[in-house]
Amino acid sequence: MNRGEDHPMALVDEHARAWSPKTARARFRAGLTGPTAGVAAGYTQANLISVPADWAYDMLLFCTRNPKPCPVLDVTDAGSFTTVLAEGADLRTDLPRYQVWQDGELVAEPTDVRAHWREDLVSFLIGCSFTFEWALAAAGVPVRHVEQGRNVPMYVTGRPCRPAGRLRGPMVVSMRPVPPQHLSAAIRETSLLPAVHGAPVHCGDPSVLGIADLDRPDFGDPVDLEPDDIPVFWACGVTPQAVVTASRPPFALTHAPGRMFLTDARDEQYRVA
Amino acid sequence: MNRGEDHPMALVDEHARAWSPKTARARFRAGLTGPTAGVAAGYTQANLISVPADWAYDMLLFCTRNPKPCPVLDVTDAGSFTTVLAEGADLRTDLPRYQVWQDGELVAEPTDVRAHWREDLVSFLIGCSFTFEWALAAAGVPVRHVEQGRNVPMYVTGRPCRPAGRLRGPMVVSMRPVPPQHLSAAIRETSLLPAVHGAPVHCGDPSVLGIADLDRPDFGDPVDLEPDDIPVFWACGVTPQAVVTASRPPFALTHAPGRMFLTDARDEQYRVA
Repeated sequence: MNRGEDHPMALVDEHARAWSPKTARARFRAGLTGPTAGVAAGYTQANLISVPADWAYDMLLFCTRNPKPCPVLDVTDAGSFTTVLAEGADLRTDLPRYQVWQDGELVAEPTDVRAHWREDLVSFLIGCSFTFEWALAAAGVPVRHVEQGRNVPMYVTGRPCRPAGRLRGPMVVSMRPVPPQHLSAAIRETSLLPAVHGAPVHCGDPSVLGIADLDRPDFGDPVDLEPDDIPVFWACGVTPQAVVTASRPPFALTHAPGRMFLTDARDEQYRVA
Repeated sequence: MNRGEDHPMALVDEHARAWSPKTARARFRAGLTGPTAGVAAGYTQANLISVPADWAYDMLLFCTRNPKPCPVLDVTDAGSFTTVLAEGADLRTDLPRYQVWQDGELVAEPTDVRAHWREDLVSFLIGCSFTFEWALAAAGVPVRHVEQGRNVPMYVTGRPCRPAGRLRGPMVVSMRPVPPQHLSAAIRETSLLPAVHGAPVHCGDPSVLGIADLDRPDFGDPVDLEPDDIPVFWACGVTPQAVVTASRPPFALTHAPGRMFLTDARDEQYRVA
């Protein structure tokens, strides 16, 4: 199972790129299951995790204490499947595919979770690196995994997140090789987007993060470094799934990797300056 | 009662300006009750609000949904009076003065809250505009209320915060007159500090925010505008106290206005780029 996020600039149907978020959500609701990379270009996509209300405080506290991997874009009221980020959306149906977790184990990957829905579920929409990859590209920073037609490589680090109540787990990072002359722009551009993971957590030697071999990512694909490229590591939105695996809450719903929620928010909206 | 934040560059004892945060906390613990404006210059001061665990989710959700007035710097575990932001600190004793709230009413202003402490209290440390006023001054933006030796004026707006559970209330803003040629720098500098209220919420006509008369602030002092000055409004850390008043939780502790918590974090640390 590829649990990674598909990269945002992958070639999708050119019509899908120009869809409004509302159109995209309607297509996914009607049964389209494909990845969301490149869909409704310029609009913010979000990771989804829904947990029972009894676990919502721990989850929100976890996100608050770990804002780089888990930047919160919205939190719903218990039982609500709507969000201020997308008018008329239904979080139970409008993603292309979901994952259902019981006691930390993945048990189903349906395209609609109305049958799994519970009245006590609180949903968290969490920022996604799709947003900052557009900013990197716009600033002229080469995005190697896109150049190479691969998914971004992701690694479970040896760096624990700060625990919150019953939730704990390692930080997951994504890695993008950056040529030295573009390093400053890459750091600046992502720093200005704190709601979508912000500045890198580390540049250079992967062993500092407990990563033994860049060629063996835990999720996604390995990517080739050009000579002189510096590996740059950003906190990654796959972290909540690593937390579910490590902490084993009795129940959780998430989006399926690469099948994000399309919001009506524009990527630019999350830029601080 | 002056419920405002004293301004950060007020003239305090020059020794206090050079204190380390640890020294400042020790002095306040030992009984010093004065305002913290200008104390331990360069270190981040924080608003404090402690609520029973039963209200902590609502409070954290309120902050998450209203990050401009209520940017969370840390949240403690229930009953804990320590924080990762200040080594060896005791949140029950290390502030100069506190406010005790019952059912939304202010009932005491002690210098130590050990007698009021409850095992179920969760404490929130929230960003403070003291941090960004240093950044404005460093960027050459005149800070009128400091020039005029006054506290910053604050206004209860007609703009409701986004409610969270049982918590609701209006956004409170602070106002600083900015000469047009400095407006860009003022917006840029504060945009880069999203953890301490970030960019202004409004520039210009106060009536847009439901403010009838700039000369009659709800907290703090009126400030004189120079010709051409534009009134610029930032979300304000007094908002949580307005929320306590409006929502009447059975119990809460806060810092007393102008008597903030001194953290070991440097102001620079909250700058995103």
